[in-house]
Amino acid sequence: MQSIELRPPYLILIGDDDDPTYAKTGFGIVHWRRDSVAGQLRFDGCPLDLGVPDMTVAQAAAAGVRTLVIGVAPIGGVVPDAWWEVIVEAAAAGLDIACGLHLRLADVPEVRDAAARSGARLIDVRVPPAGIPVGTGRKRSGKRLLTVGTDCAVGKKYSALAIHKALEDAGRKATFRATGQTGIMLAGSGIPIDAVVADFVSGAAEMLSPDNDGDHWDVIEGQGSLFHPGYAAVSLGLLHGSQPDAIVVCHDATRSEIAGWPGYEPPSIPECSERNILLGKLTNPNIRCVGVCVNTSALDDQARSDYLSAIRHATGLPCLDPVIDGCDAIVGGLG
Amino acid sequence: MQSIELRPPYLILIGDDDDPTYAKTGFGIVHWRRDSVAGQLRFDGCPLDLGVPDMTVAQAAAAGVRTLVIGVAPIGGVVPDAWWEVIVEAAAAGLDIACGLHLRLADVPEVRDAAARSGARLIDVRVPPAGIPVGTGRKRSGKRLLTVGTDCAVGKKYSALAIHKALEDAGRKATFRATGQTGIMLAGSGIPIDAVVADFVSGAAEMLSPDNDGDHWDVIEGQGSLFHPGYAAVSLGLLHGSQPDAIVVCHDATRSEIAGWPGYEPPSIPECSERNILLGKLTNPNIRCVGVCVNTSALDDQARSDYLSAIRHATGLPCLDPVIDGCDAIVGGLG
Repeated sequence: MQSIELRPPYLILIGDDDDPTYAKTGFGIVHWRRDSVAGQLRFDGCPLDLGVPDMTVAQAAAAGVRTLVIGVAPIGGVVPDAWWEVIVEAAAAGLDIACGLHLRLADVPEVRDAAARSGARLIDVRVPPAGIPVGTGRKRSGKRLLTVGTDCAVGKKYSALAIHKALEDAGRKATFRATGQTGIMLAGSGIPIDAVVADFVSGAAEMLSPDNDGDHWDVIEGQGSLFHPGYAAVSLGLLHGSQPDAIVVCHDATRSEIAGWPGYEPPSIPECSERNILLGKLTNPNIRCVGVCVNTSALDDQARSDYLSAIRHATGLPCLDPVIDGCDAIVGGLG
Repeated sequence: MQSIELRPPYLILIGDDDDPTYAKTGFGIVHWRRDSVAGQLRFDGCPLDLGVPDMTVAQAAAAGVRTLVIGVAPIGGVVPDAWWEVIVEAAAAGLDIACGLHLRLADVPEVRDAAARSGARLIDVRVPPAGIPVGTGRKRSGKRLLTVGTDCAVGKKYSALAIHKALEDAGRKATFRATGQTGIMLAGSGIPIDAVVADFVSGAAEMLSPDNDGDHWDVIEGQGSLFHPGYAAVSLGLLHGSQPDAIVVCHDATRSEIAGWPGYEPPSIPECSERNILLGKLTNPNIRCVGVCVNTSALDDQARSDYLSAIRHATGLPCLDPVIDGCDAIVGGLG
């Protein structure tokens, strides 16, 4: 498959960040892919701790680490010099460098030269692979589930990861398919679908979930929303190329406006489900909605229970908060 | 506006092509923008004739020509050496070079160097301008009409050009907005919307038709189809960003399958209209369908008349072949 591929085990660079929200990629990798993580690299005095062994670049190289993952966003957006020193050291030691920042690693001469000498790969997870074809619409073997959203940032990535975990826990064959830079860092592979040229979005989604065993589920991270005035094109191309047999609608219980787009309301959950089914039928006539995932972190227990019950009643589907409840109820209903 | 801009008058390079279908851009510019064309450059023995004066590069430069437009696709896909000699000569003489081929002009060292010395611009009309933002969904002033299709290659560009001409003939304020490489060559400006990164498609469409007078119509060239398994993402981003007040459905009377996508049927004309209205309402609740343009070139007179009558009856809208009938009937019904 043509996609970005990270080679484990990883050393995760945390540097000296002190705000956990800036290190969410690092924490996420440890949470979802603990087996891929050999250690963390922290500078003196760094208060954050991913709960994995501290390592220098030299220790990591000696221990067989293959990739330095930049697991943080620099506060203020500028990568500090101390980080560059470590990145160059790792590249010189032959470690691949995986980076989700907006810069391009190869644009930094010291990094580029060190990697060229050692043979290390520079992996910008925001840059799609080359040679993505136009979508064919050809039906592929295997099963696919796509998380879709009423808006951006409503838990589509988390829900897909949790559904994948529930499938694996149930002994089912499943693969998480990442479509955004954080998801790619967590999964170790994927395609940043929103960075693909528009003509090739559905083709990229087709490439991301190739033919598979009849009882295998690809669980595909959704992007944007069909109801988003800026990003609906990405969502539609991903829907068409993914050809999902099943969709799960993701929502944030407190979202009353498309975040950052004043005047635009998110759809109701049934409306979101119906619209995705209507448009998804183009490439998979058997598409159906199998559940609803809601971020209820802002609700108290009673409000949360009432909210989920009401949606369960309105849709007749499993409705849950994946962080609190897990996704067994959804996975149990899959064919 | 950030868009590709060609400076007239043009010298159109035909070279020694002998098949009019390969020279459709050249013929199209002369048909739609005769005032922008100073002449054509043909090699000895070229049987094609655009019906405009023959000129050498030197004559064109002396006559104030600003741009050499490559008005043909090379047969076999490889640009012959004789063309490159003329292109370099034109760039050296200070003429901008406008090219719709898949190659990049700046990748040819002789062209790049000649242009750098003279100050000529190298304009690859397949390459979008830099700095396209995410779509805001903000309502803009002025009126917009978008041609939408049941498939690719059903006359969306031609219909938009014909509607624009009918508006101008009626003394209305109107601008044709090009979204593909041929349309950009014809219009002298535009954005190749299918080459924009997916996240920015609706933003590009917003940029292409900025705020305008309340009685001004932007007539926007449609791309692809919402029913196309490969290209629907482009169509949706263009629909959302264009915020059309009016759509015109374009169809080919003989099309029974999405061209090149076996097993996919084009929608009926009412279905295509309804789907575009349903999705277009996100950014313009007042969107409506104002007409149907059909390519009936494969039908005889009786069949053509019956076909158009049946659609007129089913939709209650003006229904015509823009090549045969012009678009006055559609424009007459615009508010």
